[in-house]
Amino acid sequence: MITALNLSTKENIEFIDITERLESLIKDVNEGHIVVLTQHTTTGLWINEAEEGLIKDMKRKLEEFAPTEHYYEHDDFKKRKCLEDERRNGFSHLRTIFFNSSIAIPVKSGKLMLGKYQSVFFVELDGPRENRTLIAHVCSNKV
Amino acid sequence: MITALNLSTKENIEFIDITERLESLIKDVNEGHIVVLTQHTTTGLWINEAEEGLIKDMKRKLEEFAPTEHYYEHDDFKKRKCLEDERRNGFSHLRTIFFNSSIAIPVKSGKLMLGKYQSVFFVELDGPRENRTLIAHVCSNKV
Amino acid sequence: MITALNLSTKENIEFIDITERLESLIKDVNEGHIVVLTQHTTTGLWINEAEEGLIKDMKRKLEEFAPTEHYYEHDDFKKRKCLEDERRNGFSHLRTIFFNSSIAIPVKSGKLMLGKYQSVFFVELDGPRENRTLIAHVCSNKV
Repeated sequence: MITALNLSTKENIEFIDITERLESLIKDVNEGHIVVLTQHTTTGLWINEAEEGLIKDMKRKLEEFAPTEHYYEHDDFKKRKCLEDERRNGFSHLRTIFFNSSIAIPVKSGKLMLGKYQSVFFVELDGPRENRTLIAHVCSNKV
Repeated sequence: MITALNLSTKENIEFIDITERLESLIKDVNEGHIVVLTQHTTTGLWINEAEEGLIKDMKRKLEEFAPTEHYYEHDDFKKRKCLEDERRNGFSHLRTIFFNSSIAIPVKSGKLMLGKYQSVFFVELDGPRENRTLIAHVCSNKV
Repeated sequence: MITALNLSTKENIEFIDITERLESLIKDVNEGHIVVLTQHTTTGLWINEAEEGLIKDMKRKLEEFAPTEHYYEHDDFKKRKCLEDERRNGFSHLRTIFFNSSIAIPVKSGKLMLGKYQSVFFVELDGPRENRTLIAHVCSNKV
């Protein structure tokens, strides 16, 4: 089963816990796994702890790794054609390399087999944006 | 088929080769893939070469990227509630971003389809710890 | 279905768009996902935008993160046995940690469910090389 999930984001960098939305997709699965893909090149998926301080540490590290104020070839609009209202987001693309565009999570008895402290995050790196889309495929041995 | 694998670790950072343990799970699979998830937020999975010097280079790079001695909001126990014996492990969480919480590996004729120099590592980033758990799901086209 | 794809690379670092080659493998799939694994320890897979400036930004960031001219234990051939013509490629191994050895992508009606700006790249980090191999498994609910 293929499903699309839609999200909108409010901040430039935002970690949105999507664990419950994914769980709603696999309630009837006995054994299997779910594959989730973000359809955007300035976003990512991340499995870690939903703790506010950690999210702040992550944001600081992302800024340190690929600073907002810096020269990026991707943003050099003299060198390439760009859309009329295209954003300068070279730093957003570079920051995605800490995350995954797709993840796979085992499922049993209608539950994601995550550990006690694990949440699944959709990571916005170029927000705010409307119409962010995730695609999920549920792979079940019983079909 | 969903299976749990248990490990304990002895060092703060440790790369444990789990290739053989994964292979024992897929001996009867003709064609398919295995999905493996670590259930912890200060661990990761990594596919690379089992070479001692490289592991040392990795450990050095992890320390350089997120130093042990550094201020992390996650460890600021004035700002958040914490468990009685909670460790200061902000650096461990940040270091996970170089690895994956889950990986998928194609399987054929009872073998992981890894290359000649590839091993699968469980990466401990906040050890030593007992009771680390991996969850594996084997997806086979013939069921 | 398990398939092998072969590539050769011409530069030390090279981002090769393999989206079309993957699409040729899933034309008959109604719903499912494809798992792709690179079989090499100095290569990776990456899903992002096929834009020349961005690729240059990525190459610069990789050099900054793990410089070519630097001491790596992995390259210290006094300390370990090595093959007769083994390359010094410690920096290549370290650079792989920004990418994935394997990825999973949902498939519907014979198409990869990628977003408008997403391409799948095979990332060479120790080229030029002949005989790079990818392994793909197509998992379909209808079998």
